[in-house]
Amino acid sequence: MKLLTHAAEVITGSGVRRKFGRQPKVDDMDRIPDGAMVYDEKRILWVGKTKDLPKRFAKLKAQSLKNKKIVTPGLVDCHTHLVHAGSRSEEFAARCAGESYESIAKRGGGIWSTVRATREATEAELFKLACERVEYARSTGVKVIESKSGYGLNIEGEIKQLNVNQLLKKKFNDMIFSSTFLGAHDFPKDQPRADYIRDICDVMLPLVAKKKLADCCDVFSDRGYYTPEETRYILSRAKELGLDIKVHADELQNTEATDLAVDLGAWSADHLLKVSEASVRRIAHSNTVAVLLPGTAFFLKTPYAPARRLIDDGARVAIATDFNPGSCNNFSLRFMMTLSALFMNMSAAEIFAAVTFNAAAALRLEKTIGTLEVGLKPLFSLFDAEKFEDIYYKMTV
Amino acid sequence: MKLLTHAAEVITGSGVRRKFGRQPKVDDMDRIPDGAMVYDEKRILWVGKTKDLPKRFAKLKAQSLKNKKIVTPGLVDCHTHLVHAGSRSEEFAARCAGESYESIAKRGGGIWSTVRATREATEAELFKLACERVEYARSTGVKVIESKSGYGLNIEGEIKQLNVNQLLKKKFNDMIFSSTFLGAHDFPKDQPRADYIRDICDVMLPLVAKKKLADCCDVFSDRGYYTPEETRYILSRAKELGLDIKVHADELQNTEATDLAVDLGAWSADHLLKVSEASVRRIAHSNTVAVLLPGTAFFLKTPYAPARRLIDDGARVAIATDFNPGSCNNFSLRFMMTLSALFMNMSAAEIFAAVTFNAAAALRLEKTIGTLEVGLKPLFSLFDAEKFEDIYYKMTV
Repeated sequence: MKLLTHAAEVITGSGVRRKFGRQPKVDDMDRIPDGAMVYDEKRILWVGKTKDLPKRFAKLKAQSLKNKKIVTPGLVDCHTHLVHAGSRSEEFAARCAGESYESIAKRGGGIWSTVRATREATEAELFKLACERVEYARSTGVKVIESKSGYGLNIEGEIKQLNVNQLLKKKFNDMIFSSTFLGAHDFPKDQPRADYIRDICDVMLPLVAKKKLADCCDVFSDRGYYTPEETRYILSRAKELGLDIKVHADELQNTEATDLAVDLGAWSADHLLKVSEASVRRIAHSNTVAVLLPGTAFFLKTPYAPARRLIDDGARVAIATDFNPGSCNNFSLRFMMTLSALFMNMSAAEIFAAVTFNAAAALRLEKTIGTLEVGLKPLFSLFDAEKFEDIYYKMTV
Repeated sequence: MKLLTHAAEVITGSGVRRKFGRQPKVDDMDRIPDGAMVYDEKRILWVGKTKDLPKRFAKLKAQSLKNKKIVTPGLVDCHTHLVHAGSRSEEFAARCAGESYESIAKRGGGIWSTVRATREATEAELFKLACERVEYARSTGVKVIESKSGYGLNIEGEIKQLNVNQLLKKKFNDMIFSSTFLGAHDFPKDQPRADYIRDICDVMLPLVAKKKLADCCDVFSDRGYYTPEETRYILSRAKELGLDIKVHADELQNTEATDLAVDLGAWSADHLLKVSEASVRRIAHSNTVAVLLPGTAFFLKTPYAPARRLIDDGARVAIATDFNPGSCNNFSLRFMMTLSALFMNMSAAEIFAAVTFNAAAALRLEKTIGTLEVGLKPLFSLFDAEKFEDIYYKMTV
């Protein structure tokens, strides 16, 4: 058993769980000043004020945080593309000089340039790059990371990326990884569209399901990418095979992909930059989590997702990095929290819920993690801070 | 003598120096692929391609960078308020919820809350906080830091902050510090306005000059702060006493403070968010450096400074962090470079010049540092990157 005492605050988030992540208010954070926590390897045994520590724990050797650190549920980054090779810094410079994302894609840049580099890299090379990135994310307080394939765009390449996710699970055993198959991220340039969809449905998905390489299947459903019909076809196949599903929805254009995600019972609908008013109400009354990715709006200089409307209507809103080499080359969840405060006008309680309980819910992990309550896994983060707001006010580590 | 070889690129910036920092183009960066550099403690002895290393240096033991690192002139952060105590994270949260900077200042927040915390802190406490911050900045590649007083707003407090700058100079002897007296940052609440200006001119400035506690005197000349007349009065007194000068100009409102800076021969005019077209032309034809602080526009959600017009008209443009607890709680010059690319449409060459030669020129250090050329000080930065664009494409360390 281990005992932490004298945390500047322990934020349990128990109220957020009671409200199932909807419309979180400051009291729902359950901020315990001068807090303490008792836990063993498997679960949290007690949480409360240091002065209220029960006698049965009084003999434990305490690690005092000297009122200089805060304890939060382990932060969850529920949408990333962390396994990839290649740099797109020159493309970034070109975009800053005015070239559009789609124009860059047309001349062989965009996703396709990362696909080439990722295909050429060995599994060991990809793993090494991913490890460096995960170590950085962990240093920022992130304890749970979702990782998507989608830069192989052929059987070998997609499986290679998912294998790296399995290696990450083994190496970082103090963290949790959620693996997502995103074969339908784009269309390969070296194979007809219909053939590739057949490969996804008849070869990749059965293999992924059989070898348990992914927890979930995702599709980039948007203008110029997968149509609503293709999205429904692929995700239905994934469900038949026992995989859960999620959708890259309404990022570039409104294609009602958010509605489709809700219809199909997706874990989450992600992006939502162009989501319609009707879809906001729709997802707000569903269990599908709205995963917002403010870093992408920042890097693409587009308007941010309508976080206020989603939250006010009762949607369960999570925020994540979308870390990827094209539209958000940043793996700092703290930076995303700062952007959410500044540009989506989210309150401290809303931001807290969005990177803990709601992000865990977007990965269907909320039964075991996401808040600090007795019986749950002892997955928590420590920050050099006196209060939660400090974490995103100072967005760098 | 020391020898670095096989840098992915050595960027000397010699062309930027030839043009005195005006309208830098990509060729002015002088990017040497597979580069090498020879230097001793005092100066750079040779720069060129690894394969062209002169025979006289061939016996030196080389530190190979294996084509995985780039070498640039040491980055210069020429505008910071790094010496301060206190956190304003709750104020930040309030501002995100819609409260204005000025309204927060009126209810005792803003600069004044930092003044209270900084006055209460001991010199040793301020030094400890500053050291942690400097170590972070150094880890991001920064080698030169300007540091302003301005959170004392009385004789004792201002001198205490400037003393910390002197301690930083001693401790970090691999870096360069430029100390700025900014007694005229705001008006104290516990002393009449005229009295405080008299204290600045008759007590503080003579003391600062005599004890050589600062290289330069700065004034926050803006609506609600120091009037143009007060600014001119204080800066003229500083000049009489042998100090150089700079101005916080046209940040909240256009008050023609940029013109005043040029008139008085200031090292730099800083902020320029609201600078007029006429002042753009004025500063472009002067030697006063236009120091832009994009982090402040980001945190205050105001329009960015007109970098393109300034550069296109021929101004010498530098960028800096403005690191301070109120309007930019971020000390990452790399983040400012990313903002400059995305929101001020600056090219790689312009950004390079803005954090090296031009920023050195804003501190009147350009005769000895700012580019990597034979005879100059060996002040350089190493980055895990293959090319310069990588540094700001990946804005976190």
